[in-house]
Amino acid sequence: MSTNSYPLLQTVNSPADLRRFTRPQLKTLAAELRSYVLDSVSRTGGHLSSNLGTVELTVALHAVFNTPEDRLVWDVGHQTYPHKILTGRRDRMPSLRQLGGLSGFPLRSESEYDTFGTAHSSTSISAALGMALAAKRKGEKRRAVAIIGDGAMTAGMAFEALNNAGVADANLLVILNDNDMSISPPVGALNRYLAQLMSGQFYAKARDMGKSVLKQVPPLLELAKRLEQSAKGMVVPATLFENFGFNYIGPIDGHDLDSLIPTLENIKGLEGPQFLHVVTKKGQGYKLAEADPVTYHGPGKFDPEVGIVKPATPPKTTFTQVFGRWLCDMAEHDPRLVGITPAMREGSGMVEFEQRFPQRYYDVGIAEQHAVTFAAGMACEGVKPVVAIYSTFLQRGYDQLIHDVALQNLPVVFALDRAGLVGADGATHAGAYDIPFVRCIPNMSIACPADERECRQLLSTAFAQNHPVAVRYPRGSGAGVEPLASLEGLPFGKGEIRRESGQVASAGPRIAILAFGTLLYPALEAAQALDATVVNMRWAKPLDVELLLEVAARHDALVTLEEGAIMGGAGSAVLEALQAARVQRPVLQLGLPDQFIEHGDPARLLALQGLDAAGIEQSVRARFLAG
Amino acid sequence: MSTNSYPLLQTVNSPADLRRFTRPQLKTLAAELRSYVLDSVSRTGGHLSSNLGTVELTVALHAVFNTPEDRLVWDVGHQTYPHKILTGRRDRMPSLRQLGGLSGFPLRSESEYDTFGTAHSSTSISAALGMALAAKRKGEKRRAVAIIGDGAMTAGMAFEALNNAGVADANLLVILNDNDMSISPPVGALNRYLAQLMSGQFYAKARDMGKSVLKQVPPLLELAKRLEQSAKGMVVPATLFENFGFNYIGPIDGHDLDSLIPTLENIKGLEGPQFLHVVTKKGQGYKLAEADPVTYHGPGKFDPEVGIVKPATPPKTTFTQVFGRWLCDMAEHDPRLVGITPAMREGSGMVEFEQRFPQRYYDVGIAEQHAVTFAAGMACEGVKPVVAIYSTFLQRGYDQLIHDVALQNLPVVFALDRAGLVGADGATHAGAYDIPFVRCIPNMSIACPADERECRQLLSTAFAQNHPVAVRYPRGSGAGVEPLASLEGLPFGKGEIRRESGQVASAGPRIAILAFGTLLYPALEAAQALDATVVNMRWAKPLDVELLLEVAARHDALVTLEEGAIMGGAGSAVLEALQAARVQRPVLQLGLPDQFIEHGDPARLLALQGLDAAGIEQSVRARFLAG
Repeated sequence: MSTNSYPLLQTVNSPADLRRFTRPQLKTLAAELRSYVLDSVSRTGGHLSSNLGTVELTVALHAVFNTPEDRLVWDVGHQTYPHKILTGRRDRMPSLRQLGGLSGFPLRSESEYDTFGTAHSSTSISAALGMALAAKRKGEKRRAVAIIGDGAMTAGMAFEALNNAGVADANLLVILNDNDMSISPPVGALNRYLAQLMSGQFYAKARDMGKSVLKQVPPLLELAKRLEQSAKGMVVPATLFENFGFNYIGPIDGHDLDSLIPTLENIKGLEGPQFLHVVTKKGQGYKLAEADPVTYHGPGKFDPEVGIVKPATPPKTTFTQVFGRWLCDMAEHDPRLVGITPAMREGSGMVEFEQRFPQRYYDVGIAEQHAVTFAAGMACEGVKPVVAIYSTFLQRGYDQLIHDVALQNLPVVFALDRAGLVGADGATHAGAYDIPFVRCIPNMSIACPADERECRQLLSTAFAQNHPVAVRYPRGSGAGVEPLASLEGLPFGKGEIRRESGQVASAGPRIAILAFGTLLYPALEAAQALDATVVNMRWAKPLDVELLLEVAARHDALVTLEEGAIMGGAGSAVLEALQAARVQRPVLQLGLPDQFIEHGDPARLLALQGLDAAGIEQSVRARFLAG
Repeated sequence: MSTNSYPLLQTVNSPADLRRFTRPQLKTLAAELRSYVLDSVSRTGGHLSSNLGTVELTVALHAVFNTPEDRLVWDVGHQTYPHKILTGRRDRMPSLRQLGGLSGFPLRSESEYDTFGTAHSSTSISAALGMALAAKRKGEKRRAVAIIGDGAMTAGMAFEALNNAGVADANLLVILNDNDMSISPPVGALNRYLAQLMSGQFYAKARDMGKSVLKQVPPLLELAKRLEQSAKGMVVPATLFENFGFNYIGPIDGHDLDSLIPTLENIKGLEGPQFLHVVTKKGQGYKLAEADPVTYHGPGKFDPEVGIVKPATPPKTTFTQVFGRWLCDMAEHDPRLVGITPAMREGSGMVEFEQRFPQRYYDVGIAEQHAVTFAAGMACEGVKPVVAIYSTFLQRGYDQLIHDVALQNLPVVFALDRAGLVGADGATHAGAYDIPFVRCIPNMSIACPADERECRQLLSTAFAQNHPVAVRYPRGSGAGVEPLASLEGLPFGKGEIRRESGQVASAGPRIAILAFGTLLYPALEAAQALDATVVNMRWAKPLDVELLLEVAARHDALVTLEEGAIMGGAGSAVLEALQAARVQRPVLQLGLPDQFIEHGDPARLLALQGLDAAGIEQSVRARFLAG
């Protein structure tokens, strides 16, 4: 950071520093902060639009509240770069989302200003309410503030928290950061309602609002009269949040410190649950991001002068793209198919599907619980739903998976993207647990394609079943095996042998590696060196027991391999099946250990876990070939 | 059923029959139906209050809608006895909730009138919306109706569905069955709001409402004027549900067919999402249940003339009671303790705790997601939350368990009641999956007390840890081992040997049974006959590997035993540990198979699964001692 570019910002090493600033200085600070965020994200990649949108709000919050004594809980948390920069982590921004560097989300272990780790949406009100009531119990005067976006507000969990908070008599401030945009454009009734709240009558210029905003909302009759007199006709009083017992204030301009600071100062003095509606613009202050907040949601590195440039050579096809193409092709082929996403159109590869099949595309909002049961309802009627959901987000619909889909044995396909390690997003987003948590559910099946071609084939297999099937595949690209154009599937519940040992004369034990998923490829590489058999198991459930036993019968030792938790995972399924068949064999289980794994480059993370070819070879040698 | 008592009801074998009735006949039918429900439940036990409350609504729905062509989805579903009786299952009511008999909940496999299986709350709107949109896609004119209680409406999932439905342009009717009561009295802001809706100005007598109810809600100004003129002052327009895009109608009297039938007839003709607010009384028509709907929520058998009589000899202490006492005792001992329940005060044994420690008792509503993260927020502030939650309902907070509690390694205790088979409630409520789904999460521990004494001890152990711990215990009572008064815990992560083999001279293999939880006692019984060693493992995670290996070293074969899913369960943890230690031993895994298990007497169900002493002995003999 050159001192010249950021003269004020470079003096802020903790929020206490900025609390000494005058209002004009704070405005300058905000401008510097915005430049710093842009500069910094353009160098590292990361979340951009959302952080440009929270610059002034962050400055105002730290100026008004006595952080970290007062607790800020940032929902989702990818909008906390300004917060990180102002709370002593400015100079560590170049390490963002890299191994050993700053997390892209708030992290309790990283800073005392990060009071609650977030990343999945809509947890902030619950956590802040817990903090507020804990403070009350302990007789502490601290404040708890949840800052939540309008997208996150649509999740049921936020509603549960509002419903509880509205009667809890806690000094809780909920700030709705309304930018009319989650990652995808928002959907649902709440959003339409928010748009109405802002539709002219209610959205006065912030400068005027600043003075009057804290007066009580006028009695309804007066309000209605005033509106009718204004002849604008629309009657949408701001009562939704008041119905929940909150004192509703706003909307105010979230980029105007003259509005934000006095409003927050006033709210700080109020008792009971407060709800402040702040309007911000994603990408604020950077024209390219303002115009296209989706593209600038989470870019890689780019030149801020030029903007994001499409690479000359197209990047490798991702599993997400393979899914997206399969979905369109299968939709073309089978009119019963519908696609469901909980607000992840882009991330799940459904942009083209929505364009081509708008009547068969259902974005239900950030609402995983609903998404799963909604699919179950459709499946009851002979429609064939494909639910595209990240592995980590299926955790949100787990009960619905058991109680509504599996118990009724309904034919729903779950396309589980981001299975395994996810790289820069880190532990919060890891799709490490799906095999154990899906496998234990009766009627469920779970497929683990080894590459792009199998991904398409196994999706077709899943879709052809008359019971629920999940197909898990990792973030990014795989071995690069081109999918076939056909919609033909692979046999249900069957694996295949990909390499036979014994190609090299050897005195050691005969070893077979049983790979579940994309780690098949490093396994094949390791197997060359080890002269091991390699089995592409393909299904964690049902397990191909016949193939397993055939392989076990003619090998001395087995290795199971999966990009997922070892505990209860596919390797454990192998152990169970061997014991059930009364076969005793030494088995080495390779996969993710019983610990949370931080963010970083995915390939590097896998290598650190010994899940690259070298690591696999080394583990197998250490276990079966040492001494 | 004597023909004399139920002259009209006995002629109704399907809803088509009652559609031929006149209004007066329908009223008589409703009266007969109410008697039949009371008579029938008093003989079998089951849910009572809720079913007495839905008699007229059920008659009206089947009279107006063309079931099963039109789809009724009953939320939770324990209020569907009148529905079952009218849809061809009248004579099977004596088999209710018994093995092979009628389910206590709607079940797709039981009747075409049960369009969607329910039991966990708040799924109905999602399912019905799925059905409505599927019908739309297929060009079918059928209607989809969700009937949901005010308690179930507080769950986030219901909100997610409303939010989605309000913009989905589907012919969906949501009926809010507002009886101001879930199992426990309701909590939260939504409930307060509903009470306001009904507070005089809005709750006109149903007879008058019947005529005008379907007129559009008047423009707000008029409404406000009328209210202000009426000088009653309170201004609470019924806009909450309209904010979600629904056409709100009501509230109307849910026990008055003259109000219900014309209203439903009219709604049937309307397009788009409709919301009908119906007010009913739990226990309606049976004075004892009206006066005490909690006691009459789910009684055992009783004499309707006398009511429920407390048994002369107190029943055996349940695990729920052991938890409740421990909670009070530990709260007395440690002021940091707070207790959290998602609307299950009675079921979780927290009635006394609430009375004695009202400031430390948090009923957050039917809101499992929020409950878990709320606890995490409190734990961040040095408060020590104990979340009392059924095993099956923790599935609703699974993501929060991973993302908010375990990832941040916060000291929250989860008291998992109803672990294992639950008896009469059946597959929907089975706590069969918690060991696999908890075990795979880093930082989590899970204890499996063998009896009442250990339950108290292991709760103390859990509470003493500085990380999250779940303690799982079954419904009902156990071996009857009296808890000690002390709050001392057992060692963390340590099991014990309870019986040594070799007490009888024998030539067979030395066998050790490793029991996780209450099946320890049948294991001890079986071990007598088998002369087996029995280990009380106590912890599914962390596994007592030291003890395991010591036992494995001096036995020829091992048996694992748990009341939970075999797949990925504690037995699999044993297999993993043995392999990691390079120990090869034949292991027989006993537990719940990979299938959903229906309702019935718990002891009988366990025996059917071979999990009683005789079954265990038989399985062990078949595997290790045959031939």
